[in-house]
Amino acid sequence: MSKGLFITIEGGEGAGKTTLIKLLEAELQAKGLPVLITREPGGIPIAEKIREVILDRSHTSMDGRTEALLYAAARRQHLVEKVVPALEAGHWVICDRFIDSSLAYQGYARGLGMETVREINRYAIEQWMPDVTLYLDLPPELGLARIAAASQREVNRLDLEAESFHRKVREGYLLLQEQEPKRIVKLDASGTPEDIFKEASRIILSLQAGIKAENV
Amino acid sequence: MSKGLFITIEGGEGAGKTTLIKLLEAELQAKGLPVLITREPGGIPIAEKIREVILDRSHTSMDGRTEALLYAAARRQHLVEKVVPALEAGHWVICDRFIDSSLAYQGYARGLGMETVREINRYAIEQWMPDVTLYLDLPPELGLARIAAASQREVNRLDLEAESFHRKVREGYLLLQEQEPKRIVKLDASGTPEDIFKEASRIILSLQAGIKAENV
Repeated sequence: MSKGLFITIEGGEGAGKTTLIKLLEAELQAKGLPVLITREPGGIPIAEKIREVILDRSHTSMDGRTEALLYAAARRQHLVEKVVPALEAGHWVICDRFIDSSLAYQGYARGLGMETVREINRYAIEQWMPDVTLYLDLPPELGLARIAAASQREVNRLDLEAESFHRKVREGYLLLQEQEPKRIVKLDASGTPEDIFKEASRIILSLQAGIKAENV
Repeated sequence: MSKGLFITIEGGEGAGKTTLIKLLEAELQAKGLPVLITREPGGIPIAEKIREVILDRSHTSMDGRTEALLYAAARRQHLVEKVVPALEAGHWVICDRFIDSSLAYQGYARGLGMETVREINRYAIEQWMPDVTLYLDLPPELGLARIAAASQREVNRLDLEAESFHRKVREGYLLLQEQEPKRIVKLDASGTPEDIFKEASRIILSLQAGIKAENV
């Protein structure tokens, strides 16, 4: 069996990543494909502890570069302990957020610069870039309204940023998608979960077809 | 008043950094110079928490690149919250370990590569490189014996590394000193604390003379 595929899901707050990932997981499992769903820090103790530092609401004085280095560190550990072994075992790995989150949030929206954040992340990721990234595009006011309505989870430090910040995050994602149109596929996330899933599924299954063709 | 001077003290375990720093502090204070003694994480809550993650003995699975990113993150926060404000206020800052520790320990001894570790640290440090670095050079068997004899502090994860690791750390420091002979001054740390202090003091005071000349 060939090496598994590495799929990442990106988007702003409330774009519907969690729901999409559940539907994709069910779909791939129904097809008998080995699949690993994960998100940083992914139950990796070192990465969990790093994330606690990042999301601690009392840390309002955290410097932007400190934050970017911490995200890269947590990413590295989750990658080497969980993602890479699964890919090497032939699993499909679907990861909720990855490098593009750092580029859009820290690199672009916080103004640290996409290129320097990319450099740090290249060090953390090495050759393990996603095979495909699904970006769920949604105006931030819609995403934030969804979160407020659903109250699915506690509001954390990032949610508390101003709406203008989330608009910049979206601009960052759109810029990334223009820079890497082959890897990053933009999906309209304003529709129903079912609509988004159908489109995502079509893309995923075309990848599967590609793998089958390679293995013939 | 001119901007303060940024002095870092480097060396392997048991080289005598702590004792030297105390003597230098007393000397500078006796001369009426404003001095800040610090070491990473330096009482900066974010950096303290990062250091807890690094030094946690249960984290034996920590990847080398994760560790390098964490050290750079802690360094960044300590630098921007504590070192830079002191330097800008005209203090002399003496810091126990800084970038060269990462280069010697992670970059060289752990084999991550000095150049990549330097790159990450340049991102963390920006223009704030030390004005001078005093490297206390000592064969590691002597340093480790001193620690064992004194039992001044609890043994942590780094102390538990094999002696061969500490020999590589020393090689790394010596290499750095060759690369940057102007910034890094090597001191023979096998002598008495008083001998080491006299030599260090001579270097520090010549820096002070340089500053005075600039201000004439």
